[in-house]
Amino acid sequence: MIVAMQERATEEQIDSVIDALVEAGVNVHRTTGSTQTILAAVGPTAGLDLTKFELLSGVLYVHRITAPYKLAGRAFRPEGTVVEFPNGAKIGGNQVAVIAGPCAIENRDQIFTIAACVKAAGAGFLRGGAFKPRSSPYAFQGLGIPGLKIMHEAAQAHDLLTVTEVMEISQIEPMLPYTDCFQVGARNMQNFNLLRELGQVRKPVLLKRGIAATIEELLLSSEYIMSGGNYDVILCERGIRTYETSTRNTMDISAIPVVHKLSHLPIVGDPSHGTGRRDMVPAMAKAAVAAGADAILVEIHPNADKAASDAAQTLYLEQFEQLMRELRVVAAAVGRTL
Amino acid sequence: MIVAMQERATEEQIDSVIDALVEAGVNVHRTTGSTQTILAAVGPTAGLDLTKFELLSGVLYVHRITAPYKLAGRAFRPEGTVVEFPNGAKIGGNQVAVIAGPCAIENRDQIFTIAACVKAAGAGFLRGGAFKPRSSPYAFQGLGIPGLKIMHEAAQAHDLLTVTEVMEISQIEPMLPYTDCFQVGARNMQNFNLLRELGQVRKPVLLKRGIAATIEELLLSSEYIMSGGNYDVILCERGIRTYETSTRNTMDISAIPVVHKLSHLPIVGDPSHGTGRRDMVPAMAKAAVAAGADAILVEIHPNADKAASDAAQTLYLEQFEQLMRELRVVAAAVGRTL
Amino acid sequence: MIVAMQERATEEQIDSVIDALVEAGVNVHRTTGSTQTILAAVGPTAGLDLTKFELLSGVLYVHRITAPYKLAGRAFRPEGTVVEFPNGAKIGGNQVAVIAGPCAIENRDQIFTIAACVKAAGAGFLRGGAFKPRSSPYAFQGLGIPGLKIMHEAAQAHDLLTVTEVMEISQIEPMLPYTDCFQVGARNMQNFNLLRELGQVRKPVLLKRGIAATIEELLLSSEYIMSGGNYDVILCERGIRTYETSTRNTMDISAIPVVHKLSHLPIVGDPSHGTGRRDMVPAMAKAAVAAGADAILVEIHPNADKAASDAAQTLYLEQFEQLMRELRVVAAAVGRTL
Amino acid sequence: MIVAMQERATEEQIDSVIDALVEAGVNVHRTTGSTQTILAAVGPTAGLDLTKFELLSGVLYVHRITAPYKLAGRAFRPEGTVVEFPNGAKIGGNQVAVIAGPCAIENRDQIFTIAACVKAAGAGFLRGGAFKPRSSPYAFQGLGIPGLKIMHEAAQAHDLLTVTEVMEISQIEPMLPYTDCFQVGARNMQNFNLLRELGQVRKPVLLKRGIAATIEELLLSSEYIMSGGNYDVILCERGIRTYETSTRNTMDISAIPVVHKLSHLPIVGDPSHGTGRRDMVPAMAKAAVAAGADAILVEIHPNADKAASDAAQTLYLEQFEQLMRELRVVAAAVGRTL
Repeated sequence: MIVAMQERATEEQIDSVIDALVEAGVNVHRTTGSTQTILAAVGPTAGLDLTKFELLSGVLYVHRITAPYKLAGRAFRPEGTVVEFPNGAKIGGNQVAVIAGPCAIENRDQIFTIAACVKAAGAGFLRGGAFKPRSSPYAFQGLGIPGLKIMHEAAQAHDLLTVTEVMEISQIEPMLPYTDCFQVGARNMQNFNLLRELGQVRKPVLLKRGIAATIEELLLSSEYIMSGGNYDVILCERGIRTYETSTRNTMDISAIPVVHKLSHLPIVGDPSHGTGRRDMVPAMAKAAVAAGADAILVEIHPNADKAASDAAQTLYLEQFEQLMRELRVVAAAVGRTL
Repeated sequence: MIVAMQERATEEQIDSVIDALVEAGVNVHRTTGSTQTILAAVGPTAGLDLTKFELLSGVLYVHRITAPYKLAGRAFRPEGTVVEFPNGAKIGGNQVAVIAGPCAIENRDQIFTIAACVKAAGAGFLRGGAFKPRSSPYAFQGLGIPGLKIMHEAAQAHDLLTVTEVMEISQIEPMLPYTDCFQVGARNMQNFNLLRELGQVRKPVLLKRGIAATIEELLLSSEYIMSGGNYDVILCERGIRTYETSTRNTMDISAIPVVHKLSHLPIVGDPSHGTGRRDMVPAMAKAAVAAGADAILVEIHPNADKAASDAAQTLYLEQFEQLMRELRVVAAAVGRTL
Repeated sequence: MIVAMQERATEEQIDSVIDALVEAGVNVHRTTGSTQTILAAVGPTAGLDLTKFELLSGVLYVHRITAPYKLAGRAFRPEGTVVEFPNGAKIGGNQVAVIAGPCAIENRDQIFTIAACVKAAGAGFLRGGAFKPRSSPYAFQGLGIPGLKIMHEAAQAHDLLTVTEVMEISQIEPMLPYTDCFQVGARNMQNFNLLRELGQVRKPVLLKRGIAATIEELLLSSEYIMSGGNYDVILCERGIRTYETSTRNTMDISAIPVVHKLSHLPIVGDPSHGTGRRDMVPAMAKAAVAAGADAILVEIHPNADKAASDAAQTLYLEQFEQLMRELRVVAAAVGRTL
Repeated sequence: MIVAMQERATEEQIDSVIDALVEAGVNVHRTTGSTQTILAAVGPTAGLDLTKFELLSGVLYVHRITAPYKLAGRAFRPEGTVVEFPNGAKIGGNQVAVIAGPCAIENRDQIFTIAACVKAAGAGFLRGGAFKPRSSPYAFQGLGIPGLKIMHEAAQAHDLLTVTEVMEISQIEPMLPYTDCFQVGARNMQNFNLLRELGQVRKPVLLKRGIAATIEELLLSSEYIMSGGNYDVILCERGIRTYETSTRNTMDISAIPVVHKLSHLPIVGDPSHGTGRRDMVPAMAKAAVAAGADAILVEIHPNADKAASDAAQTLYLEQFEQLMRELRVVAAAVGRTL
């Protein structure tokens, strides 16, 4: 941590900043320049609140000089993380994975139809939500664990892996037998209790970026999971909130190369939530793959307009098959397979 | 709901939009203009996803023409809601309330000292957090229910009311005996399961605006609580995320008059989280009162710099006493008491 | 324009809204429902300020039902605009164009070296700035018209076309002989005086999206140029300001499919300004092409780190050559040539 | 400037960063820690592009440790700037100034009526626009210099000072005789050519914050004017663009205390543009004064709904008189006069 003093800072002010730093448990190196004094704090600064020092009298700026995350940082695994699943499927590495399925698991028929389509189109992961807290208490709330069982069967019937959202700690245990990858939704990205528990699980976690979260905050949340010993974290860009209203969110495609630079973790692009509009999904899916995404997550449904939730952003099965064909070509164009 | 067709929309396109609306359970009135056709959908449109219709071929715009909330709307209670507490204290109405206390309840001494100060300064509400999920698993996680008991004692000793954050459904029951007002934090503003349960409780709920939530979304979340029968909802503006970095958040003071126009619910200003900086708290507290806030929520601590959390934004007790004196004058200047 | 009245609106309120609409020169159709009255205003509503009517007593919402632009709308030219240049080069249509060059024209040597590289790599457009108002009055301010002459020579020597920024009306006339396409910078996107003059010119205009402009505002600005009779407008996405700080701007890739849906005008992606970082340019250039961009604009320099401006986002010539090879494959993958 | 190297940075990487810094003309102090090396660059770093160094291999972070502005910084004039006008009126200091008038000067009658009201209500500054580039080429474009002459007469008749917007360098000269304070609009905040010329003028400049500008960028723009020798700069907060749509802009009231902390320049609050809605203006004007604004700028018109521009945000004269009475009390409540 670097504390840059104001030009007119007095010796007294400088001393009391040094005292505050020492009291916080770090060592201080002082550089006295002709116009400005700089204090470098070395030691366990990760947990310190920088603003606190910025408020001290005579201080101009306080800057972090080490990344606030360690395990999630590129340097921790320069070669990059490849998350490997029991059936040999991978996320990370040269092959671009595809995760597809409905927003909500609705019934046996629906999910088996979709599973067959996902497999036939060449994707390896089936997604579907079992818990759907909705803005109306009268709306469909999801099938719960029984729904997960059905999706698990459908997945097994087609050698697919399942990805599904966990919303509360109490759901982890019952979900475990039917889940190959836990998804943490955007609203729970900073639910630290939940993240801590998922750090104890030995199944991969797909962590979605919050709607107002910076990439640094996303990496800090992944650190939380990893610090529990679960290193199989997959990040996901799904759109951030900006002033633009022609799409539901603004999908931050640049998060993909930024994550690849800062971290070793794989990153998925979710054009369904990223745009909120079916007609924008194909263009953004292709953009994500071209930018280097390690996987694509899309919502699909045989009767998209009648889907129990997220209808407007859900692709019809034929649209998905068409998209898969197109993505395969784009992946090849950037030196990857799909 | 109004569906405005494109100028060149065909009869076929118009018919299939009408079909889709009818199938969604609403009545349709068609106005055929010389250049443009307009469809007005009347009926239960509250749960409809507008984007779905926007994607239909030939459609230009889809607009809502009724507010998506009813119970939270101004028209529901034109005279405004005054939340009344058992000891006669109120939030809403002519008097500006003050809610003050530490970010986290740390120990008996701390909270009793603060309670005495809160009372002496003329405020009526004591706040303090018992559950503190932190980014580091080694950091202080809060005292839990035992902490709440201590705060409740301190409050009773000084005829104060307690406000404290609930983070999970399972906490509601054990918190009930020690809590006068449940706070829902910004990260839980759209935790609909939690909101639904709080709709069943018969104690007031202070609902904080999410860091990326619109005012309309805040009102929709309050509607969720009210639809359960709990009408004692108090809204809270605590800063939104923007591109500006000189304050931690941008406190949207205009949310105060906007809420007063759209809704009958009282609204609180939280300059501590709104700015994240102790030196900005007084100016923003005064601005909130001048703009019409029904209450102010501030973090205070006898040893602010050593507070277990949120140190940088926490006022010292003397600063709080000074602020109370200043707020009293500002409240009077806008025709209210404090 | 649709005016939706509040449920409790009185006849008096409704009448005075009708009066205000009639006075504004439009016809009003009234639909009286059991709970809500709707007024549809038909006529010349384009210039009306909607907020004005929203402030009238008893009004709930006011919505536009026609797009605020006509000439820029897709319906005006459903087949899409292809801007054609005197030498036969095009922007729009099946071929993806590439516009490359330094931020600032620095000297004859520099621009001739770059022109040779641009041509050899297969791009058709040479860009370079002649007017460079800088934050320091002592910094390099650009070579002005003499610089443009040099760039024009370099372009002609290699059968390239020139794109260069115009900042003031007084520059148009002297720039004309040396300019094949006028660029309007992000800061001037709403400089209506400048746009009006460019509507009189008979050379294409490349209009950059403002850093805080919506796509609708971008289209309105293009309308301004087109209303003067100059239909050869090319739009450009170059990043918008959001709360994310790991890139200088957030490049809104979804603006590309959105513009293609709403408008017939071609759209260019500028990953140099979009990211502000050389190491992110290739990924975002590929993403833009995959999403359907009609052209890519990149800053290049033989000695990028020493470039007189925008050094950090400027590619070295070898990086550009490599990027061109990659873009050619991505363009083919989405069914286009480059 | 501080360059923090990555933990695994090699000696070679460190050396080439040092070379790059030295070549950029600064001195380098190296601190080699057990895990991380820090380079402190001392010297003329103001003009350096930090991103350029961030891209060098082995670099983790680059931070500025001196403010990028000098003349605008608080340290330059710790006592604060008070801009004094020829008739003795001041902006800055203990008295809160009020600047009021129509968006556009429309005719003699209008501006004389308004001037009389401004004076009678106790305000000292009359504002009005003479140049009104509009989105429609057929809309009212302003009266130009003849309009300014009329406003100047009206101001003199009532011992008021005039504030009016300058949009182009060529307007400065003809405006000079009729203008007491030049306003630079939000869209021109970074029009550096215009700012440089205004630095040569010896009349105060009111500089509005751009709709997407940070406070630091606002101060940098003010520095540009001051570096020309014109120290009479008045800043103005008029709303920034965020995702919230219930107000036209989000007025960043916290910019007022932030500017007071970082700079010695006075700051004005503009609730008219800040909200875009007449019904929100009074609350936000009071909030701005309570937060410490040195002046308030409001749009007023005897026939607000018929104003040639900005009608929705313009107060009627009686509303303004009422607001003046209220502001006087709020100013007193924060220890100031008005």
